[in-house]
Amino acid sequence: MTEQAQALIDKLQVRPGEKARLRDRDPRDKSLFGDQEQTKAETAAIAKDIDALQDRLYAEGSRALLVILQGTDTSGKDGTIRSVFNATGPLGVSVHAFGPPTKLELEHDYLWRVHAACPRRGTIGIFNRSHYEDVLIGKVRKFAPEAAIEQRYEQINAFEKMLVENGTTILKFMLHISKDEQKERLQARLDDPTKNWKFNPGDLDDREHWDDYQEAYETMLNRCSTEWAPWHVVPADRKWVRNAAIAAIVKGTLEAMDPQYPEVSWKPGDFTVA
Amino acid sequence: MTEQAQALIDKLQVRPGEKARLRDRDPRDKSLFGDQEQTKAETAAIAKDIDALQDRLYAEGSRALLVILQGTDTSGKDGTIRSVFNATGPLGVSVHAFGPPTKLELEHDYLWRVHAACPRRGTIGIFNRSHYEDVLIGKVRKFAPEAAIEQRYEQINAFEKMLVENGTTILKFMLHISKDEQKERLQARLDDPTKNWKFNPGDLDDREHWDDYQEAYETMLNRCSTEWAPWHVVPADRKWVRNAAIAAIVKGTLEAMDPQYPEVSWKPGDFTVA
Repeated sequence: MTEQAQALIDKLQVRPGEKARLRDRDPRDKSLFGDQEQTKAETAAIAKDIDALQDRLYAEGSRALLVILQGTDTSGKDGTIRSVFNATGPLGVSVHAFGPPTKLELEHDYLWRVHAACPRRGTIGIFNRSHYEDVLIGKVRKFAPEAAIEQRYEQINAFEKMLVENGTTILKFMLHISKDEQKERLQARLDDPTKNWKFNPGDLDDREHWDDYQEAYETMLNRCSTEWAPWHVVPADRKWVRNAAIAAIVKGTLEAMDPQYPEVSWKPGDFTVA
Repeated sequence: MTEQAQALIDKLQVRPGEKARLRDRDPRDKSLFGDQEQTKAETAAIAKDIDALQDRLYAEGSRALLVILQGTDTSGKDGTIRSVFNATGPLGVSVHAFGPPTKLELEHDYLWRVHAACPRRGTIGIFNRSHYEDVLIGKVRKFAPEAAIEQRYEQINAFEKMLVENGTTILKFMLHISKDEQKERLQARLDDPTKNWKFNPGDLDDREHWDDYQEAYETMLNRCSTEWAPWHVVPADRKWVRNAAIAAIVKGTLEAMDPQYPEVSWKPGDFTVA
């Protein structure tokens, strides 16, 4: 892993057991990067490196990487995926977006649909929202009794531990934006005809619960940043900073996983193609 | 729950933390029941009661019952399902048999296919074999490294706890037969043309590992009989004892769950059917 990736992890990771305070983390922080244009160019290069590493992961075929993206409306989950993973072919990457549960999903425990969507060995799975919605909107909107929500943190930790012990590396990113930045982005969805389709009046309701959500996020970070699957809080008011940070951490993690092309049982010269 | 059901649970359950010794549990035990013919008639009646209780569970629509059947070859898993659940309509009961994992299943953690098959709210799910194969045949045949097998007991306990906390009651039955009884039943599969199809030469290989399997079962019972999902060791050399014991415990458990027909928002007389 590069020094830069390690420095980013050190700065952005919520250490297990640490009290995570969102107000102490600046969503506009850009101190970890230099010039904007140069950083963007570096991110594009890293995205290509991720593709090359993914090819090795696929060839090796024994482990998986799960990238979980959480963040309030307009925090840039889609944009992150586009920036960091567009250079990676769809052969070995799948994105799963978790919307409101269907009737069939509600007929099972809340982790049922999540487990079903977990990435196959050799692939990268990206969760655009995730089971953490069940301790975020689920908590703020009281979709389940408080006692049931309370049990979920440990359930999620045990679930993720099982995944990790069975060969899936988990990277969790909370895209941290300010309330002012969200205002601008929501306004842009109202003003820009090409963004109108992204506007959902429900987002305004959620915005009214801003403080409740921030508190639910903090509880989530405190309870579910574990040794085996830590959370990273990514400053996301600046898209180029957000993309650069996540790209570097994803690449660094894949490098640390160090996937290997499998050995073959034959030597050059053993075969000829007629 | 009837006194008989409670007495059966007290006798057959492996208390959490208890050292389970299979040699101390007699597979031919029939002391819990009286006359064979009368017991069979009672089992048939209980099977109908289970159907009635299942109807309430379905109408209530909020909880599920998961019945896990484990036992060595010829221990009578299929026969149990036939005897205890044939009176229950398929509307609210599903049986899932776990054979050797497919290629797709092997591309995920071993609990992936199990979670996917868990029963919907309002239904009874029956696992004919289960995730416990992964600490039985998986352990005896060394399908995974010892350290990975070792982690599975806690993973399974956490998984089952999550299911229970989210509304699924779990009943686990180990069908306990003697090595002599298995010999007779395997021989019958070789001799009886209507049973030939059930014979699998691999069963003889497994029989050669009898002691290893008994040890793996004991470890499973010791490690995974929990407060939330205890194991029951059922004397299964006599089919009528096996069926009677499981039927009584299933009925007693459903009675204790006490599913209720939901209240409706209207009163008799509010509507007329033209």
